[in-house]
Amino acid sequence: MNISRTSYPRIVIIGGGFAGVSLAKKMSKKEVQVILLDKHNYHTFQPLLYQVSTGGLEPDSIAYPIRKILKNYPNFTFRLADVQEIEIGKKNIITNIGSLKYDYLVLATGSETNFFGNVELEKHSMAMKSIIESLNLRSLILENFEQALLTDDLHERDALMNFVIVGGGPTGVELAGALAEIKKGILPKDYPDLDTRRAQIHLVQSGSRILKEMSKKASEKAEEFLEGLGVQVWKETRITNYDGKLATTMTDFVFETATLVWAAGVKGALIKGVDAKELTVPGNRLKVNQFNQVEGIEGVFAIGDIACMVTPEFPIGHPMMAQPAIQQGANLGDNLIKLLERQPLTPFKYKDKGSMATVGRNKAVVDLKNYKFQGVFAWFVWMFVHLFFLIGFRNRMVVFVNWVYSYIRFDREARLIIRPYNKDYSKFKD
Amino acid sequence: MNISRTSYPRIVIIGGGFAGVSLAKKMSKKEVQVILLDKHNYHTFQPLLYQVSTGGLEPDSIAYPIRKILKNYPNFTFRLADVQEIEIGKKNIITNIGSLKYDYLVLATGSETNFFGNVELEKHSMAMKSIIESLNLRSLILENFEQALLTDDLHERDALMNFVIVGGGPTGVELAGALAEIKKGILPKDYPDLDTRRAQIHLVQSGSRILKEMSKKASEKAEEFLEGLGVQVWKETRITNYDGKLATTMTDFVFETATLVWAAGVKGALIKGVDAKELTVPGNRLKVNQFNQVEGIEGVFAIGDIACMVTPEFPIGHPMMAQPAIQQGANLGDNLIKLLERQPLTPFKYKDKGSMATVGRNKAVVDLKNYKFQGVFAWFVWMFVHLFFLIGFRNRMVVFVNWVYSYIRFDREARLIIRPYNKDYSKFKD
Repeated sequence: MNISRTSYPRIVIIGGGFAGVSLAKKMSKKEVQVILLDKHNYHTFQPLLYQVSTGGLEPDSIAYPIRKILKNYPNFTFRLADVQEIEIGKKNIITNIGSLKYDYLVLATGSETNFFGNVELEKHSMAMKSIIESLNLRSLILENFEQALLTDDLHERDALMNFVIVGGGPTGVELAGALAEIKKGILPKDYPDLDTRRAQIHLVQSGSRILKEMSKKASEKAEEFLEGLGVQVWKETRITNYDGKLATTMTDFVFETATLVWAAGVKGALIKGVDAKELTVPGNRLKVNQFNQVEGIEGVFAIGDIACMVTPEFPIGHPMMAQPAIQQGANLGDNLIKLLERQPLTPFKYKDKGSMATVGRNKAVVDLKNYKFQGVFAWFVWMFVHLFFLIGFRNRMVVFVNWVYSYIRFDREARLIIRPYNKDYSKFKD
Repeated sequence: MNISRTSYPRIVIIGGGFAGVSLAKKMSKKEVQVILLDKHNYHTFQPLLYQVSTGGLEPDSIAYPIRKILKNYPNFTFRLADVQEIEIGKKNIITNIGSLKYDYLVLATGSETNFFGNVELEKHSMAMKSIIESLNLRSLILENFEQALLTDDLHERDALMNFVIVGGGPTGVELAGALAEIKKGILPKDYPDLDTRRAQIHLVQSGSRILKEMSKKASEKAEEFLEGLGVQVWKETRITNYDGKLATTMTDFVFETATLVWAAGVKGALIKGVDAKELTVPGNRLKVNQFNQVEGIEGVFAIGDIACMVTPEFPIGHPMMAQPAIQQGANLGDNLIKLLERQPLTPFKYKDKGSMATVGRNKAVVDLKNYKFQGVFAWFVWMFVHLFFLIGFRNRMVVFVNWVYSYIRFDREARLIIRPYNKDYSKFKD
């Protein structure tokens, strides 16, 4: 890669997600050369991906050009590159557009969907970890209804209108809620010749409650909200396989569905060369010390989902969510400067700012440290926080207009099949 | 196709563009069964496609779900279908989802890019007639700049940063203007390590002036505006071929470019079965009488771009633009009702509402019947008219927010490569 060396130490960041961007911003205007590599030219605000899937928002509202985020930082270079391997010994990175030497390397590659080795399940189910996957899911949902119009087989038609969402975390809960609202507000008008009351939304959770990372009260309320919206919540239910038509469980019970969304697990997105067994923990995360340094490799750091920092409070690492990623990025930014100035580093300390999930119109659950609340006010808090954290004034305005519109009109306008659903495309191109 | 017959006559409309939607709206709540077929589930506001290509707008702002447009009309059915053939004798339509009988058939299939039989040109150049093509062009433009960063070959780098737009109609002019604004406002910030001043935008027109359908004054001013923005306007220049690298002309002069946008011609999108030589005129349009009836076929009508109605005032048919399409759709709607009520039909009379094109920030040209003007006021008129004609309150709001933002910030935020450029994908999937 033809990037000239400056007289400053070179820090290469792989990944422009929450962690990578947070770190890059910290390094701005410092005496370092920062190179950020990502396979997309945009940063994705992942918490709102489900709104892209359900036609509430368009990609540009939740994506932001990486070049633009960092355009005022003269010490910063971005390259659109797919990293293929790290040669630790040579301090060299091999990518699809050439190789690149580093002085310090920061892995901020995030996570990917974990199908736990079940190939058939992976082949037939939908993931929702990227914009392309979300758009693909949007097309599939809409195409299913178009398809349902064409069949006289009642069984098949029901399967086309059934949605099984596996995983009771925020993604699963929010997607289930959004689909339920579509069922109520949009389908009867868009498909007057279908009995859309037969459409079913199933949320399947292996554990004893949904939103298990949140308070018990939040779990209970979220379940109540979902059931109020007509979502069927299946707890203590584990999907064992899915062949594109039938989803089997541990018991005799099966779901007949043309759409299974797998939001039941993630794993670290490891890169060849830094994926040795002794470096990782189960779930493909890299063991890091309290300074986010990858244990055992000098000059290599990991932040965000890919990093597993074991502390007494977090025996299996921090939750794989935006907040720890943002905070680790910022802390590492400070530490890298300290490292270069030969000052003592500051250990990472996670500051839990609370968590939240929305279930639908006027319904959300919020857990703050000392205050937990649910319902309309929580929903306003959820909206405000999400608008606030979106990067860019225009994105906030566009999302705001869309939300106000949807709220007033009980509608979502981006129900467009721009590109037809394509399982392979989604899988291999992203 | 399992659509039940009602006791009313069945009118099938093929195509949900300006003409088809205008007609469908007219038929609402009348004693007819209306079935609209389109290969997309949305209506496209084609005049703003160039803004999708240049990252100013997202697809949902200029696309509108067809089901939603017509949701309150109980006599209306939509099917997402690709029409393959019409069997005139049997009054039958064959599609990818089955066949369908009609009593009256309205062809509103619009137009497609005309490469005038030049296969190599078609293979290597970009068209911009659909949302997928526009998104594909957006990806290509952005990828070219990423690619330009990677090469040390100055020749190749220049070719990657050169854009040749063929066709000096509104599409070509507006795209050239938008690219020039990107060159000025965005590229230097996004690509500080490229000498983006070397990027060139060429607009190539075979005739003696651009915007040849408009007034002479409009042509002159548009050219002046474009040159002020740094666009090189080549008149009396005809591109003879393009191999992906070199665009040749009638003379020795060649353009070295990695991107050639072909906006130099359209032709009617004919359907098998209604494409016989005696039914059409050059440019693949169907000869229609003054009631938009396809000459020689009982019960079959054509409206919009696909229809060629020769009148003393329009010896080669009406311009292939939105206004004639909308007006023909509305007129035919009235006439179909009259036909069923055995009343005399009203011949179509085109009411020219004027035409306009924008060149860039504060710059547009407007021709009204008795009043022609250019500059800032024209630009405001252009924006107002385009906002007004967009379907849907939310679309107008979102476009408005985007435009205000771009105006204030000299920016376009949707510069996202969501899916990589893929010539074949664009061509064969749409």
